[in-house]
Amino acid sequence: MGLNKAFLDRISDTKPGKNNLITDVPGVTVGQHTIITERLKTGVTVVVPTMDNIFEHKLAAAGQLINGFGKSTGLVQVEELGTLETPIVLTNTLSVGVGYNYLVKKALAENEEIGLATGTVNPVVMECNDGAVNNIRDLGVTEEDFARAFADRGECFEEGCVGGGTGMCCYDLKGGIGSASRQIEIDGQTFTMGALVMSNYGYVSDLDIYDHQVGHKISQLPEYHKRDEDGSIITIIATDIPFNSRQLKRIAKRSSVGITRTGSFIGNDSGEITLAFSTANKIEHSPKQQLSMQKAISDDQMDRYFRMTVAVVEEANLSSLVHAKTTIDRKGQQRLSLADALAKVQLQAQGTDSDVAELQKMLGLI
Amino acid sequence: MGLNKAFLDRISDTKPGKNNLITDVPGVTVGQHTIITERLKTGVTVVVPTMDNIFEHKLAAAGQLINGFGKSTGLVQVEELGTLETPIVLTNTLSVGVGYNYLVKKALAENEEIGLATGTVNPVVMECNDGAVNNIRDLGVTEEDFARAFADRGECFEEGCVGGGTGMCCYDLKGGIGSASRQIEIDGQTFTMGALVMSNYGYVSDLDIYDHQVGHKISQLPEYHKRDEDGSIITIIATDIPFNSRQLKRIAKRSSVGITRTGSFIGNDSGEITLAFSTANKIEHSPKQQLSMQKAISDDQMDRYFRMTVAVVEEANLSSLVHAKTTIDRKGQQRLSLADALAKVQLQAQGTDSDVAELQKMLGLI
Amino acid sequence: MGLNKAFLDRISDTKPGKNNLITDVPGVTVGQHTIITERLKTGVTVVVPTMDNIFEHKLAAAGQLINGFGKSTGLVQVEELGTLETPIVLTNTLSVGVGYNYLVKKALAENEEIGLATGTVNPVVMECNDGAVNNIRDLGVTEEDFARAFADRGECFEEGCVGGGTGMCCYDLKGGIGSASRQIEIDGQTFTMGALVMSNYGYVSDLDIYDHQVGHKISQLPEYHKRDEDGSIITIIATDIPFNSRQLKRIAKRSSVGITRTGSFIGNDSGEITLAFSTANKIEHSPKQQLSMQKAISDDQMDRYFRMTVAVVEEANLSSLVHAKTTIDRKGQQRLSLADALAKVQLQAQGTDSDVAELQKMLGLI
Amino acid sequence: MGLNKAFLDRISDTKPGKNNLITDVPGVTVGQHTIITERLKTGVTVVVPTMDNIFEHKLAAAGQLINGFGKSTGLVQVEELGTLETPIVLTNTLSVGVGYNYLVKKALAENEEIGLATGTVNPVVMECNDGAVNNIRDLGVTEEDFARAFADRGECFEEGCVGGGTGMCCYDLKGGIGSASRQIEIDGQTFTMGALVMSNYGYVSDLDIYDHQVGHKISQLPEYHKRDEDGSIITIIATDIPFNSRQLKRIAKRSSVGITRTGSFIGNDSGEITLAFSTANKIEHSPKQQLSMQKAISDDQMDRYFRMTVAVVEEANLSSLVHAKTTIDRKGQQRLSLADALAKVQLQAQGTDSDVAELQKMLGLI
Repeated sequence: MGLNKAFLDRISDTKPGKNNLITDVPGVTVGQHTIITERLKTGVTVVVPTMDNIFEHKLAAAGQLINGFGKSTGLVQVEELGTLETPIVLTNTLSVGVGYNYLVKKALAENEEIGLATGTVNPVVMECNDGAVNNIRDLGVTEEDFARAFADRGECFEEGCVGGGTGMCCYDLKGGIGSASRQIEIDGQTFTMGALVMSNYGYVSDLDIYDHQVGHKISQLPEYHKRDEDGSIITIIATDIPFNSRQLKRIAKRSSVGITRTGSFIGNDSGEITLAFSTANKIEHSPKQQLSMQKAISDDQMDRYFRMTVAVVEEANLSSLVHAKTTIDRKGQQRLSLADALAKVQLQAQGTDSDVAELQKMLGLI
Repeated sequence: MGLNKAFLDRISDTKPGKNNLITDVPGVTVGQHTIITERLKTGVTVVVPTMDNIFEHKLAAAGQLINGFGKSTGLVQVEELGTLETPIVLTNTLSVGVGYNYLVKKALAENEEIGLATGTVNPVVMECNDGAVNNIRDLGVTEEDFARAFADRGECFEEGCVGGGTGMCCYDLKGGIGSASRQIEIDGQTFTMGALVMSNYGYVSDLDIYDHQVGHKISQLPEYHKRDEDGSIITIIATDIPFNSRQLKRIAKRSSVGITRTGSFIGNDSGEITLAFSTANKIEHSPKQQLSMQKAISDDQMDRYFRMTVAVVEEANLSSLVHAKTTIDRKGQQRLSLADALAKVQLQAQGTDSDVAELQKMLGLI
Repeated sequence: MGLNKAFLDRISDTKPGKNNLITDVPGVTVGQHTIITERLKTGVTVVVPTMDNIFEHKLAAAGQLINGFGKSTGLVQVEELGTLETPIVLTNTLSVGVGYNYLVKKALAENEEIGLATGTVNPVVMECNDGAVNNIRDLGVTEEDFARAFADRGECFEEGCVGGGTGMCCYDLKGGIGSASRQIEIDGQTFTMGALVMSNYGYVSDLDIYDHQVGHKISQLPEYHKRDEDGSIITIIATDIPFNSRQLKRIAKRSSVGITRTGSFIGNDSGEITLAFSTANKIEHSPKQQLSMQKAISDDQMDRYFRMTVAVVEEANLSSLVHAKTTIDRKGQQRLSLADALAKVQLQAQGTDSDVAELQKMLGLI
Repeated sequence: MGLNKAFLDRISDTKPGKNNLITDVPGVTVGQHTIITERLKTGVTVVVPTMDNIFEHKLAAAGQLINGFGKSTGLVQVEELGTLETPIVLTNTLSVGVGYNYLVKKALAENEEIGLATGTVNPVVMECNDGAVNNIRDLGVTEEDFARAFADRGECFEEGCVGGGTGMCCYDLKGGIGSASRQIEIDGQTFTMGALVMSNYGYVSDLDIYDHQVGHKISQLPEYHKRDEDGSIITIIATDIPFNSRQLKRIAKRSSVGITRTGSFIGNDSGEITLAFSTANKIEHSPKQQLSMQKAISDDQMDRYFRMTVAVVEEANLSSLVHAKTTIDRKGQQRLSLADALAKVQLQAQGTDSDVAELQKMLGLI
């Protein structure tokens, strides 16, 4: 199952990497832990940016607050110093403190000098509110769950209702984790950009995929239920292109285009926050020399990279919708998957809706 | 000629005001002066936010730098103080200094105390580069041209290739000035929001209007020429809703959705800058009392206002395309209007392109 | 014990409130819990901005990142929405997650609809690294400690080595919690501004108090030890002046002047973060009406409020030094109090140092 | 005449460069044109950052808005792209448009492709309001005056009442242009940082130089007149240390400490804006390759550079005061120089004020 690649070339002429996942960026791994009990549908997704000790060998990074109605931690210091020094963990809003605690303990375990000889550490925890599906008030995520997500990490990972995305909703449908990648030639070398989203935003009436305004049709289904709760979308962008933090911020800003291309409008209470990092340069915690030479890339052809960003974020987001499965939400109602929703629309039309059929094909759903 | 209103209700259920122009916001007027000579196709558009002396009675305002590759003046102080104290003038990039000079002289003439008893004034000049059509190096705009634009001001004004928009291009087609308005009920009262754009951004291959991906077809026309030069889009949002400067900044941020909904991606050298102001409260230059009561609106239903913002900016932008006329550019090539481009595509298809026909109807072009 | 008020009038002609504490602002209370064991010297300070349910009746607020090398949470949303919806807790850096967890549980307990009918909550946790004195790697602060700090709250509270300030150092001396207040007449009404700092920044060689460059002298003492670890200073500013969030940000920015007036330079790894809030307007979580009238104050006489801000922050910071007591740090070395340090300098000079004597008098130390 | 270097080592152990001017940074030149007529006391100062064509070979740069009550142009694009592509011109507030026009014409003359093949140019014009001394409403600065300032440029230049500083006031005394430099060893190489200020801010009652609170004494002089008008201070920082734009922004932020160390508090209407640039890397307008290696410096020892920044900005500012001469202002009143003010205080004290005498010596005034 996968999106129709030919169609994806609208905004960018780049092609996906090997697995069409963020882990196509060399060194990046992802791990997840899914928690499903009678009351809980939640979990943890971790993005590990490098095989190195990231506290010792930091990476250039930047955050972009598309809409700052969110509780993510660590972004203040990323903005000041332009570096990332922990893995990134994604979970539900009320579990941010648990994630912070876990990252602190993990950093202490891996770095004996923290708190003794070298200050502290800046944990990056990102979140969406999965309260429509999950009993978020139960505070069901533990530090062990974060450990399990890290233990699970690798280059291949599932998308949809998994990890931090287990309880998330997107365009009133079931959302979750989605990922994609793109490759590009620069000065004769091949570079990769990957995106991972935890999608939890939007209203179905606005949903418009590749010029197919299917949202309105879905909103007419008897099985459709509008979500009461807040949305949000977290986007992680990884690349081995040697962007500096200023450029990464510009890249991260373009994720908003990838996010809104499916019809949304950056809602008031939709915390839309993007973090972008580059693996190209290592920024040493304890540099032997102050002066060095760093890999750099000019802004001259940023349009190519911006187009790639829009494409990879839009596809990661669609991929979260395509991979999610219909789920019973906290109130006992169906939270439809996109696949099921389109199938039901088609069923109601007795198979005659060619517009929906075209979209189903594009999305690899039939 | 106008856009099909029924269709515009996709993102927002609001309706246009009387003239579907930014001047539907009470007190706002617009004036323009168009300069067309053998070498020049440029001009000036002014947005006058209030009938009052705006230096004495300032308005709440905020700028949003969607992409800060631009030379507009005045935004630094608007950010610090949250107020607008001059009219807004729009012209070509290299004429910003002339506009600054004009606004200074106008403010000096109207306010005897400036520079004597009360500091200076913060002129807001906004710009795009019309160098694809206009011989911008000729520096063809004078202070008198700004005066003429002010003399012309009123509630009705032309859109398209007029004023500051005379030489602008949008999606490689002819762009220019566009405007629209929307009205909304809040607590039983009717409020208006208006937008005016000077559109000069985008590539035709990306153009996608209301799910009609016509850009690709237009790019195949023999009369089509890709633009070499930079783009940009300036957006002015006016409203009588009592937003404060923080809220106006959030409103201005949503203009990016209205701008990219037609397919663009916030290009590297596209200076996309939005200024929003509210006429609801007067902020006195010389307040008699420090304490006062000010009209305010909660953030609780911002989604309604955000949707309205997206709608009014998208339509203002489309209106700039719809009203523009095919123009011979600086290199002697045709810079097609959207109307002519769609007609040529239809002609090539011998009238059989139902997709284009549908769009032509929606846009009121046939 | 107290600072010499006559001397404090240098930058501002305002006078302290009743207790010369942040709690002089009506409705503001402070609670603290101090943790001292063989290995721990740390704790929690909480600033409770209002007697109301702050989640239901939010307050206007703004953060200022003087130097964003810090891990405080909640500032992203405060910036976006301009509101504070939880009390503020201050603790050590590695306990931020515990504080986040505590504030989440407290908000859940007090607001049944969170996570069910109304989204989540934005906990504001602020921190400095007390690792010079405290075994911060022990993670010695628990959620119960936060509860104890809340239980302790009231209008009177101790300063110095207490609560979150227990293990903090300032200018290489013992720092901690300090507070001060000022009152001002505006349009015939009296308003109050209070500051509370958790001081943990600076190098003694730079210390210069009220034109007495005593830092250099202290640095020559045999008992003096330079600190290896990072600094930081958290500043909370409370007021009943009806500033909006834009104005509160401008107020918060001036705290940097109060902080550096004692000689510091905003060090690289000194996380200097200020949060300011106003109690004047309530911003309803569930407003019955969208439109309202809000108390406002013009920017016209901001200089008076800026001067007051500098004065109150400078004094709060000095008060943290004046109230702190000599403490044995993590390495078993003395972390001198300012009082003891000045006394030792004077002792070495056999009582002849009139400069130090003058400062001791000013600070109420002799 | 010069400041007492021994004394200047308080915050930083760095030493001035050859001329103790911003032009000690290799490649940087400064030119000035002073306009003094019956009604005018104003002018132009230009900082030329490089001998190269700066449009073709841009420099890394960053602006910092300490207080954004100012009308400088070009900062928006500097923030977005992190580059400077014109020289920097400093003049009075109402002449910003003239400066913009001049820089446009100069860039057009030097770069044939601007407006034809390569977009436009981002002029950086910075300003203070010299209306206390100059009849600023006369708009007395012409484009020719900018040309004269450029024609004058070199490594040596005057300070005080000259160029853009001709009519400026500082701490109610006569201010103007001041400059200083510092040198530092990094990894065995010597680097330089220089500052140039146009000082026009502050109130004399706050003035405190090197712990000598002389402002209050000066304010008692019969010849002293408080200024009614707005202040401001523009600071330019140049260096050959290979800072990137993020680091330059952090450097620029520390200029606020250098500015307030003499007692000011960042007044409401004091536009305090700093621009910092590094000459270490050239950022090509038309790069042959996208990928390159760039000189870089770690944040690890930023404290050394921050201290140097504070020192060089404080001294540049003091130097503007030390070099300025008593001037008759617009209202016919004396605007005292610091030298004359201190001499008058001493005269009143019949030569017995040892505090003032000490300061006069430190400042090289006696």
